[in-house]
Order: sequence, then structure tokens, then C-alpha cells
Amino acid sequence: MKKSLGILGGMGPLATADLFTKIVQMTDAKRDNDHLRVYIDNNAQIPDRTAAILSGGADPVPAMAESAQKLASMGAELLIMPCNTAHYFLPRLREQCSVPFLNMIEITAERCRQTHGQAPAGLLATRGTIQTGLYRRALEAQGVPCVEPDEGERDLLMNAIYAVKSGRQDLDKAAFLQMLAQMKTRGARYFILGCTELPIVAQILGLEEPLADPTALLAQKAIEECGGQVVFKGRSRG
Amino acid sequence: MKKSLGILGGMGPLATADLFTKIVQMTDAKRDNDHLRVYIDNNAQIPDRTAAILSGGADPVPAMAESAQKLASMGAELLIMPCNTAHYFLPRLREQCSVPFLNMIEITAERCRQTHGQAPAGLLATRGTIQTGLYRRALEAQGVPCVEPDEGERDLLMNAIYAVKSGRQDLDKAAFLQMLAQMKTRGARYFILGCTELPIVAQILGLEEPLADPTALLAQKAIEECGGQVVFKGRSRG
Repeated sequence: MKKSLGILGGMGPLATADLFTKIVQMTDAKRDNDHLRVYIDNNAQIPDRTAAILSGGADPVPAMAESAQKLASMGAELLIMPCNTAHYFLPRLREQCSVPFLNMIEITAERCRQTHGQAPAGLLATRGTIQTGLYRRALEAQGVPCVEPDEGERDLLMNAIYAVKSGRQDLDKAAFLQMLAQMKTRGARYFILGCTELPIVAQILGLEEPLADPTALLAQKAIEECGGQVVFKGRSRG
Repeated sequence: MKKSLGILGGMGPLATADLFTKIVQMTDAKRDNDHLRVYIDNNAQIPDRTAAILSGGADPVPAMAESAQKLASMGAELLIMPCNTAHYFLPRLREQCSVPFLNMIEITAERCRQTHGQAPAGLLATRGTIQTGLYRRALEAQGVPCVEPDEGERDLLMNAIYAVKSGRQDLDKAAFLQMLAQMKTRGARYFILGCTELPIVAQILGLEEPLADPTALLAQKAIEECGGQVVFKGRSRG
């Protein structure tokens, strides 16, 4: 009997749709019945996570806990969420949650070590996510050094992320590639797409570097933990 | 205050992900909080609808009603579902459902009349959907004649739909265009993509005929009914 999965969504809505789509596409299914039962609460009213961390904005945990409880009461036996930054609040959320909650950041770090050993990972992410140290600590716990973007590189990343958020496709490929080259000279051997817009940036720019996509890794782990079979189709990657 | 939306999903899972993605993409939102709260039950255990209609398979209505009730208990104030064939059971489902349930087929027929007047619509759909007469009756209620595929055309449509379901892209464009041309000689002035795989077929073949996509029309109507603002982005169309 497969377990039912719950997605604490809305952070953001498009990332939630992307995570759900990846779960469907990565499930080895010949008919509808081979798929997982998935409950989603696309809760768009959760206070901004970055503002809460960096500038004293409203605490998002009560709204996140309410969604988690709703999903559990629907029947979800395992919970996940697509937002990198929201994982900062996962320890507090788990205290208020009656079902297990997977940690996308730790799953990514574990897979990085399995795939690339102790080779240093280059972290591509928002300023907020970098500042929390979430990825750096999770990678270091796996013995994997983390190469973070410097100040100028963070600006360049934020510009690319905001461009994609607003639907633009005219990214500065030369500048992006130069940033990756700089991070390589500081040791990065592959890159973590640690923001839900970054797989889209990578696709637009046609990046050829080895990449780790946390959303795809989370989807894969969730399918396995729920007793489904994983298959790789289309542009999903780990 | 916006209404919360519920998606009775799992029929099929990819169509559910597509409907949710369209709702997110078609909502005019500057930040997460401008999006709708959407609850989804991707219930992959609902018995096959086509088998129930055509060959005496298990009744899907009890499982559908259970999902609808779960969504209502989460807080959904309006329900929708992406499966064309499942709409055959909507009258019975509505009797067991405490919140309003939009009808994708009627919404499509209404929009066809608003956009194309009394010009005949060509129906592209599965054999099961055509056989139920769902679209023909809904179109006729709007005074819109419905041009249905003949036997050979139904075979060709089923082949294209199954090809896409199994991930193939090598469709016979010439044969598909010839089918559309034949339906045009019988009066069709535009085409309804009455199966969730058909927007993908249309995209692969680069069809240039005027098309109505029921999933996109349902997404648009659901956003409006819930008090959101609709915007058209990317490849969404009505």
C-alpha cells in the first residue's frame, strides 16, 4: 500500500506546480492508478519567508503549521515543500506537525555527496538563502565543501532570478558563464540550483555544467518514500 | 476576500498538474499573496471513467464524492476537475457535494458561442467522450452545431492521443491535417481540444487552426469566479 503525500505549497505557487508536475512525470506509471495520492494546499497567504529572516517580517510558521495540519487531516502521511528559504523554519514546523516532513536541503546535500563525493559544490541561490547558511551547513555535514557566490555574483544571480520571475528571457549569458567560471576557479566542480527559478535560468542559457536540481531530487525522494517507482523522463534531472 | 478553489484531481495526474499550472500562470499576480488558495486531491484511485461508461466498469462516483467532500472540508468553496470524460458523472456528483462545482464542458460551449457565434465547432476528443454526447449536447444548448469525427477519424485521434500519452512525438502531421480538412468540408470552422492530451498534440504539430482549449477556459473561469484577476501569459490560450 502506497503512502499519501502532502505538498505544503504556495511558496511560491509556480514552484508548487513545478514540484507536483515533476512528481507526476517522474513516477513510473502505466495507468492513473500507479500514481501517488497527492494532497496539495497552495496556501498563498503565508507571510514572506525572506522578509521574516532578514528584516523582522511576520512569522510564517503559524500559517505553515495550519497548512501542514490540514494536509495531515486529509490523509497525508509524508509532507514536503518546494521553497528553499522556507526550510529555515522546518525545525519549528516539525515540532507542530504530526507526520514526517522531508528536508529538501538535506536530501540535496546527501545526493551531492553520493554523486560527486567530496568535490566542492557551487551554490547558486538567492541572497536570503545564502545568508541563512542552510546549504552550507547541510553540505558540510556531508563533508562537502560549499563555494558561495561573492557580493557581485549575488547581485548577478538576483538579477537573473528576478528576470525569470517577471517572464523575461533576455539573460546575459556571457556574464552568467563568467560567474560560473569564477566560482570554478574557487573550487566549484558542479552547481546546486538552490532557487526554484534557477532551473529555468539554466534551461534558457543552455548550461552544460553538471547541475543538481533540489526540486527534482525532492520529487524523486518523495516518490520512493511513498512506495512509488521512479522513472526519468523529459527534462527532469538530478 | 477571494474564494478558495478545490481541484478534484488524479483524472489523470498530468492533466491535474496542467490545470493547476494554468491557474497559476493565468492569475495576474505580482507576489505570492495575489494568488488563489488552491486545494488539490490528486486521487489516482478513482475507477476508470471510460470503462464505467462504455463497458460496465466500477462506478467512479463514490470515490469522486469522497474527494469532493475532503476538498470541501479543507475549505474549498468552488470545485473543478480537469477530466472531460468524468463530466459525464457531474450531475450525480453535484447531488453529493456541498459546494458549487463548475462544468468545464458547459463553460467551453458558452465560450465557443461567445467567440465564434453559431459557426460549427469541430470536436476533437476520445471515442469515449464523443460517445457520451457531452460536448454535442452542451454545444447544441448554445445553438452551436457540433461536427464530430467519423469512425476513421476517431481511430486517428485515438492513435495521436495514445502516442502522446506514451511520450512519443513522431505524429503523422499530414494525416492529422487531412482529418482537420475533412472536418472543415463538413462545416467545422474551429476545433475544440476535448481531451487533455490534445493541446500537446496541437503544440507538437504546430496547428494554426483556431482552437478552444477547455482546460485553459476552465482555469480562466475558476480564477474569475474566485475573485482573482486573469492575465494571459505564455502558451495559454482560450
